[in-house]
Amino acid sequence: MKVLVLGVDGYIGWALAQKLVKKGHEVYGADNFFTRKRVREVGSDSVLPIPPISRRLLDFRAHYGKSLVFYRGNVTNPKFMYDLFRKVKPDAVYHLAEQRSAPYSMIGLKQANETMVNNIVSTMNLIYAAKDINPDVHIIKLGTMGEYGTPNIDIAEGFFEVEFRGRRDTLPFPRNAGSWYHWTKVHDSNNLMFANRLWNLRITDVMQGVVYGTSTAEIKDSRLFTRFDIDEVWGTALNRFVAQAVAGLPITPYGKGNQKRGFLSLEDSINCLNIALEKPPGDGEYRVLNQFDQYYSVNFLAETVRDVYGELTGNEAKIEHVRNPRVESEDHYYNPDHAKLRELGYKPSGDLRGDIRNMISDLMEHKEKCLLLRKVVMPKTLWRGSPGVS
Amino acid sequence: MKVLVLGVDGYIGWALAQKLVKKGHEVYGADNFFTRKRVREVGSDSVLPIPPISRRLLDFRAHYGKSLVFYRGNVTNPKFMYDLFRKVKPDAVYHLAEQRSAPYSMIGLKQANETMVNNIVSTMNLIYAAKDINPDVHIIKLGTMGEYGTPNIDIAEGFFEVEFRGRRDTLPFPRNAGSWYHWTKVHDSNNLMFANRLWNLRITDVMQGVVYGTSTAEIKDSRLFTRFDIDEVWGTALNRFVAQAVAGLPITPYGKGNQKRGFLSLEDSINCLNIALEKPPGDGEYRVLNQFDQYYSVNFLAETVRDVYGELTGNEAKIEHVRNPRVESEDHYYNPDHAKLRELGYKPSGDLRGDIRNMISDLMEHKEKCLLLRKVVMPKTLWRGSPGVS
Repeated sequence: MKVLVLGVDGYIGWALAQKLVKKGHEVYGADNFFTRKRVREVGSDSVLPIPPISRRLLDFRAHYGKSLVFYRGNVTNPKFMYDLFRKVKPDAVYHLAEQRSAPYSMIGLKQANETMVNNIVSTMNLIYAAKDINPDVHIIKLGTMGEYGTPNIDIAEGFFEVEFRGRRDTLPFPRNAGSWYHWTKVHDSNNLMFANRLWNLRITDVMQGVVYGTSTAEIKDSRLFTRFDIDEVWGTALNRFVAQAVAGLPITPYGKGNQKRGFLSLEDSINCLNIALEKPPGDGEYRVLNQFDQYYSVNFLAETVRDVYGELTGNEAKIEHVRNPRVESEDHYYNPDHAKLRELGYKPSGDLRGDIRNMISDLMEHKEKCLLLRKVVMPKTLWRGSPGVS
Repeated sequence: MKVLVLGVDGYIGWALAQKLVKKGHEVYGADNFFTRKRVREVGSDSVLPIPPISRRLLDFRAHYGKSLVFYRGNVTNPKFMYDLFRKVKPDAVYHLAEQRSAPYSMIGLKQANETMVNNIVSTMNLIYAAKDINPDVHIIKLGTMGEYGTPNIDIAEGFFEVEFRGRRDTLPFPRNAGSWYHWTKVHDSNNLMFANRLWNLRITDVMQGVVYGTSTAEIKDSRLFTRFDIDEVWGTALNRFVAQAVAGLPITPYGKGNQKRGFLSLEDSINCLNIALEKPPGDGEYRVLNQFDQYYSVNFLAETVRDVYGELTGNEAKIEHVRNPRVESEDHYYNPDHAKLRELGYKPSGDLRGDIRNMISDLMEHKEKCLLLRKVVMPKTLWRGSPGVS
């Protein structure tokens, strides 16, 4: 298949491209290096060294014996999106090219609006390019489990049957996100659902949990590393905790730490995204998949990192709760469905301790980098702070 | 009170400003004349003559003995919004400054993206300006009944108590809109709900039905007219039907015409918006009001216009169903709640035939203008057409 990965230079994109080429697909990618630039702006960097795209593409070709055809450009530009579709004529397209950080979207009004516009317009351009140029294309769009928030009822996969005053209907499961970033994913989901109603586009909308991990089965060689962020803006909970332990810093859950979220390893994320490709929805189907392995409390993850780090190194990592910069429930019911990907063949690796062990080993080789980044790991972006125009 | 009306030059804005000044408020307004410009672009015009804003402001002052303080500018510019808030320090702000046409948003990708960006960014700017400069301000935001779509269950006002697998929660009522425009209102509602959670802003989110009418109790004088659009892009169902009858053209329901929607007169809309102001939500409350008088099928409205026009003039208007340019259910359950505004004191005028009679009289005086606009009244904007980049 011809597979186009928008955001191919990113954490998931670069790992996914490697899986796809191994599976025998023709892989095309696009990126505008938004994440590289924005990570530098907060004084941070990927802990695992990643070379410039030109070098990456050479290493990719050397290792896999096949090229990744790369286009530099911004998918919020309709013309760039249309040109991509005309050149590539993809059978499937992964949209991973959105602003992907919740804290970034909360820095202030400028970043909030930038996140709204980038994410919504890129998805709109994708919808129109698909229906105008290649209406059979399978769109695989990254959303987030965070779209649902933490309701006091079970979370269905996209839709649920509801009874209200004695009548029944199947309706979109109510969303209740917790940052401007998360809301853009809700807006995208709504727009994609409507695009499907208008033009019968074939869409998989992935409600993904928090991804952790330094590596996948394909990444055998440090030249093939994907990026790995640990700062408060671009790093996510478990990745940050492991880096804190390795750097000899306290592990810092936000608030009480009883918040529960769905998590999955990078390996599992890539496997699930590949399953979505290999088991596409039917013609004209809009499909929502809740994509995660298990849900954990933040405290459980902090304690597990501490324990595994202790077993491996003999050193004791401390856990220090810090004031929660976010606006979120710290004690809540959480029971999201996640059956559909399993029915399609997803076998969760289910080895959290093994995954953490591997991450610690990988990061130990970049301990100085973790230390260098210790200044950017603590939360500064306050949800209720978020300034506007000064 | 100091009341700021964003979009004061529009259909509802100009009528609302007159109500507010009569009620003794200090009225401030802003507009960038987006609607005037875009209506001209589709070769159309307001049937009722409206002078330039400079003239409008003079007539306003002459009639009411008080000035409307006007600021020209674009509320998608954060600086303009902040400056407005700093200068006016409003006690309440009505946000009527969004792109308000469903067909316009479906013309093509350019207009779809423009609608997304305009509407979402203007509301984000409003949220931030409010919380930074005047966090006690009451935000009254125009949404639409179209946010809900036509589910097979009763429609609650914003939130509903849902039971799912034996557990209960009160959640946002699922939205399922029918055009990009309607979806931007959903996105706005979601963003406002979240802003309320972050900063306890006091918000009334108005899910308004389709507004019809040429006049209100305040508009005694043709110099005080508000605009009145009848073309396929900027006119809405009932307004268009009356103009068609007056011009001697067939009345053209889309498709089968069994679509049901909530409707209210311009007079009632202004009264409801005034009630929202006089009976504000509590501190830190996000309140959703379903604002309409009654729901009717499109066919019932077409037939009522035909009948009233016949009684008044002795002439027979024809009804000709045209192919539905939209993607919507033409036979569906519809039973939206609308109790809250009534509890706050809204007494619906409930005189549809009288309202239509008045509209016919008003439009008869501008029959040539209706005739002139006959070329733009038939639907050309096809929901499934909507082209992208050529």
